[in-house]
Amino acid sequence: MKTLIQNAWILTMNEQMEQFQNGYLLVDGEKISGVGLMDSLPKDIVYDKLIDAGGAILLPGMVNTHTHIGMIPFRSLGDDYPDRLRRFLFPLENECMNEMLAYTSGKYAIAEMLLAGVTTFFDMYYFEQQLAMAAEEMNVRALLAETVIDTVTVDVEEPMGGLDYAEERFLPKWQGHHRIHASVGPHAPYSNTIEALKKADALSEKYNVPWMMHVSEMDFELEKFRKERNQTPIEFLEAIGVLSPRLVAAHCIHLTDHDIELLRKYDVKVAHCIGANTKSAKGVARVRDLLAAGVTVGLGTDGPSSGNTLDLFSQMRLFANFHKTYLKDRSAFPAEQIVKLATIEGARVLGMEEQIGSIEIGKQADFIMVETDSVNMFPIYDPYSALVYSAHAGNVKDVFIAGRQVVEAKKLVDFDLAQLRAELAEEMNKSGFRSKALKALKDK
Amino acid sequence: MKTLIQNAWILTMNEQMEQFQNGYLLVDGEKISGVGLMDSLPKDIVYDKLIDAGGAILLPGMVNTHTHIGMIPFRSLGDDYPDRLRRFLFPLENECMNEMLAYTSGKYAIAEMLLAGVTTFFDMYYFEQQLAMAAEEMNVRALLAETVIDTVTVDVEEPMGGLDYAEERFLPKWQGHHRIHASVGPHAPYSNTIEALKKADALSEKYNVPWMMHVSEMDFELEKFRKERNQTPIEFLEAIGVLSPRLVAAHCIHLTDHDIELLRKYDVKVAHCIGANTKSAKGVARVRDLLAAGVTVGLGTDGPSSGNTLDLFSQMRLFANFHKTYLKDRSAFPAEQIVKLATIEGARVLGMEEQIGSIEIGKQADFIMVETDSVNMFPIYDPYSALVYSAHAGNVKDVFIAGRQVVEAKKLVDFDLAQLRAELAEEMNKSGFRSKALKALKDK
Ligand SMILES: [Zn+2]
Ligand SMILES: [Zn+2]
Repeated sequence: MKTLIQNAWILTMNEQMEQFQNGYLLVDGEKISGVGLMDSLPKDIVYDKLIDAGGAILLPGMVNTHTHIGMIPFRSLGDDYPDRLRRFLFPLENECMNEMLAYTSGKYAIAEMLLAGVTTFFDMYYFEQQLAMAAEEMNVRALLAETVIDTVTVDVEEPMGGLDYAEERFLPKWQGHHRIHASVGPHAPYSNTIEALKKADALSEKYNVPWMMHVSEMDFELEKFRKERNQTPIEFLEAIGVLSPRLVAAHCIHLTDHDIELLRKYDVKVAHCIGANTKSAKGVARVRDLLAAGVTVGLGTDGPSSGNTLDLFSQMRLFANFHKTYLKDRSAFPAEQIVKLATIEGARVLGMEEQIGSIEIGKQADFIMVETDSVNMFPIYDPYSALVYSAHAGNVKDVFIAGRQVVEAKKLVDFDLAQLRAELAEEMNKSGFRSKALKALKDK
Repeated sequence: MKTLIQNAWILTMNEQMEQFQNGYLLVDGEKISGVGLMDSLPKDIVYDKLIDAGGAILLPGMVNTHTHIGMIPFRSLGDDYPDRLRRFLFPLENECMNEMLAYTSGKYAIAEMLLAGVTTFFDMYYFEQQLAMAAEEMNVRALLAETVIDTVTVDVEEPMGGLDYAEERFLPKWQGHHRIHASVGPHAPYSNTIEALKKADALSEKYNVPWMMHVSEMDFELEKFRKERNQTPIEFLEAIGVLSPRLVAAHCIHLTDHDIELLRKYDVKVAHCIGANTKSAKGVARVRDLLAAGVTVGLGTDGPSSGNTLDLFSQMRLFANFHKTYLKDRSAFPAEQIVKLATIEGARVLGMEEQIGSIEIGKQADFIMVETDSVNMFPIYDPYSALVYSAHAGNVKDVFIAGRQVVEAKKLVDFDLAQLRAELAEEMNKSGFRSKALKALKDK
């Protein structure tokens, strides 16, 4: 099956950052088989289906490098409370989260990402088996890391039980899948034993998949490692030998120059979550310094409890404004560079840059079209500027993953959003989540 | 004509911040004549039209306290250039801006605001006569200030010619209009004579309308007044006697404690433009301190050249994240307070709090409905959180101004967006704006 898309403003995000303002894209099965200016479209081209993009901006599917998709039920719950973790998150998670709630939440979250042009994500939560099934079913591309933490959790009966979960039930099951990749995610350096961290790293190595961890996010985390070992969290991770190109370190808000040098030396990847980090007043990571050092950085939303929405448009705009302001430089991080972070650099964070992240012949056909008919999208001199400063998630009109159209004209192709919501709402009721959440709000 | 709206989650934004989760609103002509819970809807209620809100969030129309609506042609042009004013803005404005370009740009900008739930705005630009006509025609509520500056401009032939423009042609013309209010806007303290500033203040007093000025925005502005007078810009404005409750000071990024005390003392209003201020790396105004001192603050987008979009959803989210981070306090500015700034406080900035800004019986029926069907709008425990952290401009579905529906199901009622865009595009071509803009980009 060959599909020809014509009349698109194509941002290839390739090495040369080529763009084709009046361009065509040819998709053959799962892959991209042609791209260029309409003028150069071969006359004898053969295709089964023709799509007119109507002047939409066509770019690689976005990569959300850090999410917790099982947490949709928490969205808008206790957003501005200082003690929201203790008051809302932990009790509700412990008492109400279950397989079906995670699964229906995962499907809903994936729907949100697809509709917003995110075609690949790296998740970390509980019940990742169910979340992987949700991702498989929804035809998205995903890396999913089962959480490892030094307490009993909703899906394992012993501290660090996520390791067994991952090793015995999760990673083997998805090995070799073309879109779904199972992995492991120690919650943080401070909430795991050294042994567990080493085991997680070893699992990642054995299965050759990236693993994920929250790193250098919390003030108390830095304090703890300074007090106990006179090290930063990243120095600690180096000391125990788990820094590698396979590690995706989420947040990395508080970094020393030496930390940055270590991240570079071991080619550790960074998932930068500007929205969640600044909503929680934690600070702004040193992304310019990271990039200058040669560290690979992508964008992440964090979970819907911390970042609320799972789209990268809001992240791109927050990124631009925060980094310009923190650097006191209005020309820092031009829009083009921010779109790179949301696409090809995100792919690099996940070790998938050979498959996705740019519009190039031979790569997987993961791409999106952002309409330019809405009022906020005119005029456009610079499509990158339009994406970063003007667009919102609602401007995404078409989404393809591995050549398959999953969003058409702003609607899911294979699923009914109202039904996904109804299923999630039902699980929120059945599990007692909703009633307990409302009670917790009343008790404030 | 009486309209009953049922099944809405109504945020009244009144003094008690009452909300009615399953509420009704009754509109009688231009005004609100009833509001409450569906349960308490009088059985014998009479109406001509029934609208089911379908669970949408209903709130007062938002107030954009600082715009330059004539500048739509500049959107996405040279966003990240350090010298964009000299390279793009000034030459294009001087060579190409004209009555028709301002007028068609104004109509397009108003369309954008209406579709995003902004029902009232305070503008400052050239050709305000044409912009007022655009606002009149599009059934929006507006305050419009003709720019006064110490140079010849596109619409006046002498430095400070905006004063004559305002006094002779503009303010008298709109006196007594129920929606359109003409005023005057000295560009900044540093770009006007003392005499001009006094004259602008006197005009504002004579016509009893707020006036507007950019204040304490630029580093060189502070430097100039310190060097020349050993004063801050606000101390200078006090010294020449033009601080009053009628002055809307846009930006106020750099304030001393004494400045804040002066703003409070004279009840000067502040239009806070977090998006534009941070995109240009200028900094974050001391809004918490202003509010603590009792100064009235509203939200503004600035022009589409500086802030790109004219909606307040992106401003609210940027506001939350920036102020929490700058204050290192995740519970600072709860969402409820931010929605207040976008509605009733904005109304206060414009001196219109008796007419608009809250859903109260007897007030003008300026209100909007934000749908909760889109994927980003579930679940909702707190509608304020949903508006600030989850919603985008594309979630606005219905908009009423003075009882008249101007947006229905996300479409303009009285205008065709594609046609407004075509008319603007034509003027951008005819004026040479588009070709000169593209040339300036090529010459980079
Ligand atoms: Zn996280
Ligand atoms: Zn301005």
